[in-house]
Amino acid sequence: MTTADAPEPKVSVPSDKAPRTERGRKTLRKLLDAAALEFGEHGFHEASITGITRRAGTALGSFYTYFDSKDEIFRALVDDMSGKVREAAKKALEPPLPALDRERAALGAFLHFAREHKEIYRIIDECEFVDPAAFRAHYETTAARMTDRLRAGIASGELREDLGEAHAWAIMGMNVFLGLRYMVWSDEADPDKMAELACSILREGIARPRGD
Amino acid sequence: MTTADAPEPKVSVPSDKAPRTERGRKTLRKLLDAAALEFGEHGFHEASITGITRRAGTALGSFYTYFDSKDEIFRALVDDMSGKVREAAKKALEPPLPALDRERAALGAFLHFAREHKEIYRIIDECEFVDPAAFRAHYETTAARMTDRLRAGIASGELREDLGEAHAWAIMGMNVFLGLRYMVWSDEADPDKMAELACSILREGIARPRGD
Repeated sequence: MTTADAPEPKVSVPSDKAPRTERGRKTLRKLLDAAALEFGEHGFHEASITGITRRAGTALGSFYTYFDSKDEIFRALVDDMSGKVREAAKKALEPPLPALDRERAALGAFLHFAREHKEIYRIIDECEFVDPAAFRAHYETTAARMTDRLRAGIASGELREDLGEAHAWAIMGMNVFLGLRYMVWSDEADPDKMAELACSILREGIARPRGD
Repeated sequence: MTTADAPEPKVSVPSDKAPRTERGRKTLRKLLDAAALEFGEHGFHEASITGITRRAGTALGSFYTYFDSKDEIFRALVDDMSGKVREAAKKALEPPLPALDRERAALGAFLHFAREHKEIYRIIDECEFVDPAAFRAHYETTAARMTDRLRAGIASGELREDLGEAHAWAIMGMNVFLGLRYMVWSDEADPDKMAELACSILREGIARPRGD
């Protein structure tokens, strides 16, 4: 299964709390977007439920329609952000591409997303402390999607036959650090050029070409 | 400047508090080792100064000889761990090596270190929240050392001439994620084999060799 086949991400609220109306879905969306800003700015410990509802412009009661606690909306937010990253990559992968172009497109989509949603790093990283299992799940599912893509590239004869899960973790780490350094900590680098730079390592390594 | 030329790491306590005797240095070492365990197990917020002195087997007064607060020993610990990682890499790089073997040796040393000091991830990662400037400095100095190594490899004609700081960040991210997944979260993988796997990406990329 490639990333393009991944199921639609769902906002993870307990099933008895899932919104049933369009208006409810909009309120839930507002709460999650407000939570991203609140947790991104203040961190988990300093963030407050009233800070979230104030930013969302909703009543406190609306919050409790969907979530029981700050922990619960934080977890839902991590799921929501994982889903958004997945969606961004999925769109970039819609036209079928050669294996290496696929990695460049997925990374480019991720870097654009990180530039637009700088708070994602702080939220995912803080998740390591607030909810270690969700932190692990976020990276494990991302690595699993990448491993699937590598396997598709092996099957098509484009990629080295010995690639596996560990190579996916290596590539994911590369992407995460480039995003942190060049999309979040500074604004100068062009996401597409940065994706090509990373892709050049995957295409040819870092050694000087023989015969040069 | 290669890693091998890096200055000796120093334990960062304010200069008026630096131990003057061998006994003092030993006490400071005990406190830092105890702090690594305490912060690694409980995290910054739940960790306590008495938890640290209990583990170190020292009196509370000894703590305040060297540190004013939990924040201060946490910062000193991050510096201390950065220094230890640097020392481990430095040792591995003592015999002069070809450029790619140098990257494999440095990564192998880091992976061995991570396996032996699993708490390093939690401590460095939590530093993002406790002391963002120190978190950034940790990765920036590591990337600067790697960039220097890449430049030395360009100068010797072994590496691609277009390599720079961003490639160092990519390689560092690869290493950090392989360490997290295969040294800290599980114990099966051999550090040296994992270093060779990463090095194979740097040597040849992930594409199927032409003519295969």
